[in-house]
Amino acid sequence: MKNSNKLASMPTIKRLPSYLHVIEAAEKEGKEYISGTVIADELELEPIQVRKDLAVTGIVGKPRIGFPVRDLINAINQFLRWDREHQAVVVGAGHLGTALIGYEELAHRGVRIRAAFDLDQQKVGKTVNGVPVYSLGQLSDKIQELNIDIAILSVPTSHAQAVADMIVKAGIRAIWNFTTVKLKVPSNVVVQKEDMSSGYAMLSVKMKHAFGEHD
Amino acid sequence: MKNSNKLASMPTIKRLPSYLHVIEAAEKEGKEYISGTVIADELELEPIQVRKDLAVTGIVGKPRIGFPVRDLINAINQFLRWDREHQAVVVGAGHLGTALIGYEELAHRGVRIRAAFDLDQQKVGKTVNGVPVYSLGQLSDKIQELNIDIAILSVPTSHAQAVADMIVKAGIRAIWNFTTVKLKVPSNVVVQKEDMSSGYAMLSVKMKHAFGEHD
Repeated sequence: MKNSNKLASMPTIKRLPSYLHVIEAAEKEGKEYISGTVIADELELEPIQVRKDLAVTGIVGKPRIGFPVRDLINAINQFLRWDREHQAVVVGAGHLGTALIGYEELAHRGVRIRAAFDLDQQKVGKTVNGVPVYSLGQLSDKIQELNIDIAILSVPTSHAQAVADMIVKAGIRAIWNFTTVKLKVPSNVVVQKEDMSSGYAMLSVKMKHAFGEHD
Repeated sequence: MKNSNKLASMPTIKRLPSYLHVIEAAEKEGKEYISGTVIADELELEPIQVRKDLAVTGIVGKPRIGFPVRDLINAINQFLRWDREHQAVVVGAGHLGTALIGYEELAHRGVRIRAAFDLDQQKVGKTVNGVPVYSLGQLSDKIQELNIDIAILSVPTSHAQAVADMIVKAGIRAIWNFTTVKLKVPSNVVVQKEDMSSGYAMLSVKMKHAFGEHD
């Protein structure tokens, strides 16, 4: 697949989890079918957008009936590879790392956080939300031992690149980056960078539209 | 502006902060102009996408020279209303709330977090990263007193709607929702919901593309 194709569907991919929420809620209510319009209304999107996004799953809706709920859930999970578990570690067990360890939605989506790592010797040997905290020196050993796929990076900015280098050296090929640093990694390592300021940009523009120019 | 127009530019709005990062870095290096291609390379986007996104600012690039750096920074900040400060409170001073209070990027973008609120009486009366923590009962008074625009909601799921109701009652019209609950609010209140699972969806698809179907 060409790079440009992947980029074109980024907003679609980002919306799939919210579709999954709505469709799972419909299933809990005992519904067998859900229409694109119902999903669109729930999420305040345009129906055409929803149908276009859901086309990536290969599931086709029936006119007047909608999409089969169970098939659509399975297809989204398969598309996102959320039909399997990923073993993860959290590197940086500060407030953000601790919050991520406790974030139930991730466990629900198959992310198994098996260990945390921190520089602070006062944290090492303890547990955070049931997850053991090790020293950074044990990173490589634990990653091998626990067969880890994903490192969630939540260290202070000043340590981000150095710790990312350690993570890559330990054999991890997927980093979920919660620091503000744009990491330099080899081309065979994938990085997803979270940026809180994107959300703040959205909030700001919504405020501008709702409250007017002179608010 | 029609609702569909606003929705059409959501991915654009979400990308603007990353453009701002790159353009500010160029200014720090003493550059007066930056080309769309340079921005695109830095962020691994298509140049056409960057030029389309930046068109919302009204700044026009010169052929072979690019965009004037200072004008572009000003125009993005103006578009996002980041040329003014917003007074904010954090409601829920747990690990996530504490992490958000310490997130420097928000301060840099004009978010002034003036107070935090928590149910836990052990936290009340103390400070978190220099921000005073009050009891939830003081919410309404403090919001009036400090002239607050934005409430950042980071309470446990089970309290999310009840606390959001208190926030709205106190006169806040913008909620940045870090809980997993889809809040019900009056139509004159704007909500921006952060969903970590969108980022995990992106990471999952990147892993699928990079490591293949059978990884």
